This record gives sequence, C-alpha cells and structure tokens, in this order.
Amino acid sequence: MAIAVCSGSFDPVTNGHLDIIERSAKIFDKVIVAVLQNSQKTSLFSVEERVELLKAATSSLANVEIDSFGGLLVEYMQKKQAKVIVRGLRSAADFEYEQPIAAVNRKMAEEIETFFLMTNPAYAYLSSSIIKEMAKYGAKLDGLVPSVVEQALRGKFPPAR
Amino acid sequence: MAIAVCSGSFDPVTNGHLDIIERSAKIFDKVIVAVLQNSQKTSLFSVEERVELLKAATSSLANVEIDSFGGLLVEYMQKKQAKVIVRGLRSAADFEYEQPIAAVNRKMAEEIETFFLMTNPAYAYLSSSIIKEMAKYGAKLDGLVPSVVEQALRGKFPPAR
Amino acid sequence: MAIAVCSGSFDPVTNGHLDIIERSAKIFDKVIVAVLQNSQKTSLFSVEERVELLKAATSSLANVEIDSFGGLLVEYMQKKQAKVIVRGLRSAADFEYEQPIAAVNRKMAEEIETFFLMTNPAYAYLSSSIIKEMAKYGAKLDGLVPSVVEQALRGKFPPAR
Amino acid sequence: MAIAVCSGSFDPVTNGHLDIIERSAKIFDKVIVAVLQNSQKTSLFSVEERVELLKAATSSLANVEIDSFGGLLVEYMQKKQAKVIVRGLRSAADFEYEQPIAAVNRKMAEEIETFFLMTNPAYAYLSSSIIKEMAKYGAKLDGLVPSVVEQALRGKFPPAR
Amino acid sequence: MAIAVCSGSFDPVTNGHLDIIERSAKIFDKVIVAVLQNSQKTSLFSVEERVELLKAATSSLANVEIDSFGGLLVEYMQKKQAKVIVRGLRSAADFEYEQPIAAVNRKMAEEIETFFLMTNPAYAYLSSSIIKEMAKYGAKLDGLVPSVVEQALRGKFPPAR
Amino acid sequence: MAIAVCSGSFDPVTNGHLDIIERSAKIFDKVIVAVLQNSQKTSLFSVEERVELLKAATSSLANVEIDSFGGLLVEYMQKKQAKVIVRGLRSAADFEYEQPIAAVNRKMAEEIETFFLMTNPAYAYLSSSIIKEMAKYGAKLDGLVPSVVEQALRGKFPPAR
Repeated sequence: MAIAVCSGSFDPVTNGHLDIIERSAKIFDKVIVAVLQNSQKTSLFSVEERVELLKAATSSLANVEIDSFGGLLVEYMQKKQAKVIVRGLRSAADFEYEQPIAAVNRKMAEEIETFFLMTNPAYAYLSSSIIKEMAKYGAKLDGLVPSVVEQALRGKFPPAR
Repeated sequence: MAIAVCSGSFDPVTNGHLDIIERSAKIFDKVIVAVLQNSQKTSLFSVEERVELLKAATSSLANVEIDSFGGLLVEYMQKKQAKVIVRGLRSAADFEYEQPIAAVNRKMAEEIETFFLMTNPAYAYLSSSIIKEMAKYGAKLDGLVPSVVEQALRGKFPPAR
Repeated sequence: MAIAVCSGSFDPVTNGHLDIIERSAKIFDKVIVAVLQNSQKTSLFSVEERVELLKAATSSLANVEIDSFGGLLVEYMQKKQAKVIVRGLRSAADFEYEQPIAAVNRKMAEEIETFFLMTNPAYAYLSSSIIKEMAKYGAKLDGLVPSVVEQALRGKFPPAR
Repeated sequence: MAIAVCSGSFDPVTNGHLDIIERSAKIFDKVIVAVLQNSQKTSLFSVEERVELLKAATSSLANVEIDSFGGLLVEYMQKKQAKVIVRGLRSAADFEYEQPIAAVNRKMAEEIETFFLMTNPAYAYLSSSIIKEMAKYGAKLDGLVPSVVEQALRGKFPPAR
Repeated sequence: MAIAVCSGSFDPVTNGHLDIIERSAKIFDKVIVAVLQNSQKTSLFSVEERVELLKAATSSLANVEIDSFGGLLVEYMQKKQAKVIVRGLRSAADFEYEQPIAAVNRKMAEEIETFFLMTNPAYAYLSSSIIKEMAKYGAKLDGLVPSVVEQALRGKFPPAR
Repeated sequence: MAIAVCSGSFDPVTNGHLDIIERSAKIFDKVIVAVLQNSQKTSLFSVEERVELLKAATSSLANVEIDSFGGLLVEYMQKKQAKVIVRGLRSAADFEYEQPIAAVNRKMAEEIETFFLMTNPAYAYLSSSIIKEMAKYGAKLDGLVPSVVEQALRGKFPPAR
C-alpha cells in the first residue's frame, strides 16, 4: 500500500493545501496530513486547532488521515511506513526552497521520495500568512479557505475594529 | 493499479533519466517509459533505436515497460489507463518550462496528475543534448549514460577525427 | 491623453492577452493593440487575419484600437504619440525575457515607459503556441481563447484526423 | 483623473525609489507616495521622518503628494480614489515576491491594478537595507540616495567610529 | 601576488565551503578564509571555534590562511591587499542574493572583484543551517562536513535524546 | 602564470564583453579572448572580422590576446595551458544557462575552473543579438559598443532605409 504524507504548518489550512491533499488522495492509497509541531515558530492556531480544522476540511475524503509530529519528517515517515512526501510548488521560488530539503531527506532516508505537484494556478498566490494578513484586516476569504477556517479566523480576529 | 508514465525524447536516455525511471518504479505499480514521436524535431537516434536503448538500460526493472507514442500525451495515457505523469526537475528553469505544460494537461484531462521529482544533484547538469555534444568531440561519458548508450554514441560519432 | 500600446505577435490572441488589454483599457485613455509584422517568424495566421481576430475579440471595448506595425516599436509609438507600453508577466521567466527589452527601449526613447501587469493566474500557463499545439490535436479550447479564435483555429486544423 | 500610488516603507527613500516615482509622475495625473505604518517592523527613521525626507526629495515634482497610511493598501486607495499601484521590479526575486501580493490585492479590489516598472539597471542592487548597512560603516552614498537622506543618515550613524 | 578572500559565517564549515576553498587555492597565490564577526546573528559556534574548525579542515592546504574580521569586507580586503572575493553559487536564488552585494562592493571599492564558482552539484543542497538542523536530530553527516566538524557538532548536540 | 580565457561568439563584441575582459585582465596574468568557430550558427561577422574587432577594442590592454578556436573549449585550454574560464552573468537566466556547461567542463577537465563575474548593471541588458537588432533599425549605439564596432555595424546595415 502506497502511503503519502503531506506535511506542513497548516496555520491554517487553505484551499491551496486542500487542492494538493485531494489530488494526492486520488493517486495514493492513503494520505497522512501531518502538522509539524514547531516550538520555535509562533503560530496563530495551536497544533490541536490546526488538526481539528484539517479534520473538518477533509472529512469527505475517506483515505485521508490527520496527524501531527515533532522531530525529523523522515523518522516520522519510517514509523508510519510511508514512502512518499507530497509537496505543492507554486513558483520557481518554491522550487528553490524545496530542492535542498528534498535532497537532504533523500540523503537521510533513500527509500523515501518527495513528489511535487504544481499548485492549481487559481491558488498560486495563496499562503497561510497571506490569509492571516487578510483576515486581520477583515478582508473576504471566500474561495480561499474552507468555511470552517473562515469562521475560526473570525474568532481570532473579531470584526470589532 | 497505479500506472505512471515517463515521457520524453530520450535522444538518448541518460543516467539522469534512468534515475527518475528507477525511483518512479519503486513507488508506482507500473511505469511506462514513452518515447515521443516528434517528426518536427531532428533526432540523432530513430524512435526505434531510442526504444531499444531504453529497453536495454531498464532490463533489470521488472515493472518498467518501454513504448512510443504520437499525438497528445493525455490521450495516450487515457488509452493506457495511466493516471500519473512523472517528470524530473533539474532547476528553476525546468520548473518554469514544465509549469504551463502540466497546467494544460490538467485542463485537457483533469484525472491525470503530473508529479515531479527533483533530479539527483549528481545529474543536475545532464541532458541528452549535452551528451550528444560531448560524444561529438569524443569526451568520456562514463557515469553519465548507460554503457549501451555509450557504445551507440560511439557508433554515431566514430573516433576517427 | 495617455495612450498605451500592447504589442505582440497575437498568433492568435488568447484570453490571457485579452485580460491584459481589458485591464489596460480601464486605466489608460486609449489602448492600441499593435500586431508585429515579423517576416522572419513563421506564423499560423497572417497579420491581416490576426488583426481581424483582435478586432472581433475587442469589439466591445470602445477605447481599444487594433493596428499592425513593422520596424522598431519605439518609432511606431513616437508616430502614434503613445508613451506607455503594457506587457503581461506570467512568470519569472517572462520577467527575465522582458527586462532587457524594456531597458533597450528606454535607452532608445527615454520618454517611453514599459508597464507590466501580472497575468491573471487563471491564464498563467496560456500562450499562443500552447493554444496552437492544443488546436492541432483537437483539444477543447473553451475558456482559453475568444470563440471567434476557436472557430478560426478549427478552420486551420480541420477535425478530419 | 488617473491617480497612482507608490507604497512602501521608504526607510529611507533611495534614488531607486525616486526613479520609479519620477517615471510614474510623467505618466499619471497624480502620484501619491504612501509610507506604510508598520508597527511590527523596526525602522531606522520614524514614519514622520520618512515622510519629511520624501517631501524634500520630491519637492520639484508638482503632481507628487507624500502621505502615510495603516491597514490595507486597497482600502487606503479606495479612500483616495486611486486605481493604480506602481511597484518597481529589480530582479526575478522581486517578481516572485510581488506576484502573490498583486493577486491578493486584485482579489480584494478588482478595480485596482498593480503596474510594475523595471528598475533602472543602475539602481538594480539598491535597497533601503543595503543603504543602511553602508551608512552604518561610513561608506560613501553619493549617487545612491538624495543628499537630504545622506545627511539624515549621517545624523543616525555619526562618523565618530 | 593574487590574494583571494572567501568570507562567510562558516557556522560551521561544510564540505561545500571546503570545495570552494580548495578550488580557489589552486588558482590564486593565497586564499584567506575570513570568518565574519556578526554580533547580531546568533551562532552555534563562537568565532574562535569556527576559526579553529576551519584551520583543522584546511590544514593540508599550504596557501590557505584562516582569519576573522568585523566591519566592511572591502575595508578588510584593502588592509590585507586582497583584490578578489570568491563566492560559491548553488542556485539561481544564490545568484539573486549575491548580485546586489557584489554590486555594492564594487561601488565601494572598484579595484576589488567578486568571482563566483558554481558549487559542486553533489553539495548543491548543503548549507550550515541544514547541517545544524540535521545534527540536532542526530542524522548522519558523513560526506557532508569534515570529520572534525562532525565531532564538534556531536559536542553541541549530545545524542542523549 | 595564471592564464584566463574569455570565450564566446562575440558577434560582435559589446561594452558588456569588454567590461568582463578588462576586469579579468586586472586579476589574471594573461587573458585570452577566444572566438568560437561555430559552423552551425549563422553569424553577422565572420570569425576573422570578429577577431579584428576584438583586437581593435582591446588594443590598450597589454595582457589580452585575441584568438579563435574550434572543438571543445577544455581541449583548447589545455593546449594553451589556461586554467580559468571567465564568464559574465547578467541575470538568473544566465546562471541557469551556464551552470550545466560549467559542470560538464569540470567533468571533462577537473583542473579547469570557471569563474563568473556579475556583469556591470549598466550593461545588464546588453547582448550581441540586441545590438544587431538595434543596428538593423538604425538605433544609436553610443555607450553600448566600442566605436570600431559601431562603424562595422553601419557597414553591415547601411542607413539607406
């Protein structure tokens, strides 16, 4: 059984992430979406909140599982018997960022492969940070994040300004 | 069964191509290496020769099949019931080249996905054209192409210069 | 009166071109779409056909004029008293291609400025050559080119294959 | 009347910024240079100081107005009835940085367009941070910033080292 | 005598750095490896430790000297009568990062040139930060850093996790 | 004695080329400018003409020698006992183009190094093809090519249009 992992911060999950998750779920037997526990990076949502939002947003996808992990991604994958990392590429800048990470992961665990999908052009400009910036100023987010995320963002940034 | 297709000119196949083919063959149930019949592009090797060289170079890979095709790649894939295109990315320039092709293929057949693998850094500078240029001037090709290709190139560029 | 020029081969015009033309027409008083007469490049449509297709595709835009020109763009613009060139940017590769052209145009005519618009992400992969390749194989073009262009392409590539 | 906005931190304004402002002022009826009030980013000059330096540096440009703003750029523009954002592009890296911002701004306010100008090659390496780094070590800044900025920098980094 | 300087943080030196140093030492009469004293950046190794690691790693190279410096690189070079800066380029992103720095250095000291070497593709993904991240999680570093650095990293990240 | 080679088509030499040649001549003991004899590429100037133009343009540089060569650059260099190739980089696109060539040259002759210089920003948009295009339409070339080249171009494109 081919198990793929989509790892990331997902702070919060966007429609761009969901597009990659859904497309992966059509190709691989099982897709684990793994939220990275990164104590150094300040996040808007806690790891638990991010896991919950991902669960809600992927509830209709039978072969998608939501989890979180700390430490090295390749060690987490070995524990989960997953052989494929799936990452989205929005731009040449993303490519430059991902290339050394993929090379290091291969150096550490040669049996694990990173596969890249081109982001749907309609979401090419999307990122969790842009979403948070938009939410902070009360901009409309329809079509950019799942509705459950839109609600959660309104909770973090009350429109009382 | 997940069938992946590696398409290209393969004029001739290099160790960079083989690296992508071998890594794909570890992940997918079956990998079809499909030589593009492109009457407009002048090639050093005929389609038949390229197929033979690929067969020789991949003979140890049980789930790899060599074929050739004309016309649209997505139509060929639909006929073969293949859902995954695998392409190697050597550089940001490759990314820029591949992005519109992947987008157009999705537009024409949404069920087909293109997955990208980062080329092994050791082969990052390799291309069929560089190999042909090197062979033309009698440069050593060890470690860059399968030995069967090295021989075939010597046949095309006799060392009598 | 601020006159802008969108120049190019437009062989044929795509919805990506139209998006740039329409957005320019909202900002500038008058937009001249100027088809480059380039005898060296083989084209599918004649300059006259390309002008006609552009006229049909922009018929609803009151301040857009279709024309063709030979020679240096900056000399054509001086004759037309136009001060702004508008170009679309789809990717970093487009940027790299356009940067020296813009610099040379400024060197030749400092009063003329080139302004760039980011292509609508939905059309980021579109180009006239990709459209011609798709049309050649009978792929559907809805949403990618104006319907008048779709018909003209069917005339050039009859579906009798 | 076509109103363009050049927004940024301008901490401090460089000759690269001025080049973009001057070229915009030749094309658009009015150019508003808008200093972003960003409480999160530590700056060398206060917003007030940056506005004053910009006023001094653009005093000869009749249709240029200096202002500052907080919050979303598109909301500021709607208030000012400005339809055009002008941004300079120095490199492909700038392009990658600007592309998602332009896309998000269009998503939030479709009537507002971002136009990009290629930076004058002579200033292609200039940035406010490089200027501050140079000033800190007492390097000469002639030709890189307006003289009023050079003086202000000497005030911040006294040559007593 | 042509003296070249390889400057950087070297926190710690990797085999990628060593490759550039060794290749420079074959071309130039003398190569000074100069560790930048940067009080603002938090480092894993002190400047003294970094100098010691570099000395150990380059002990077999007769014309290589290890040093450290503060302030402007060009002023340090003038003091050392060095005319050449050597920098490695791993990717287009490195190019974009280095271009303005080289331009500013030329602006400040026209007699000093920056020469760039393409990193050995085998080390193209290497960086001191990736090495530190790998060391933190106990990943194997053989072939990526000199053995003296591997030991020093084990001292900083004891395997007791 | 450190001998460097600047190779290229030089059809014709521009001020951008000259800038690289002059800067190389300050660092290396001897610089050989080697015109590539490439029978496949159609050129405006013959190899002999290009050599003459380079000789005229570099006559004041005592340690610069003009030559031409066919075949592999590394074999030419071995014959000339030259160890350094110098190439100019104008943009990230140039980097992408040069990286595989440098890697292949190292693979063929490990003792030969390619050093890259960032092109003077003022010439960043210059290329022989842009110069020929400009000359064809009678555009002014002052400051872009040596005056001897400007004259030679006027001979090729008489102003009688």
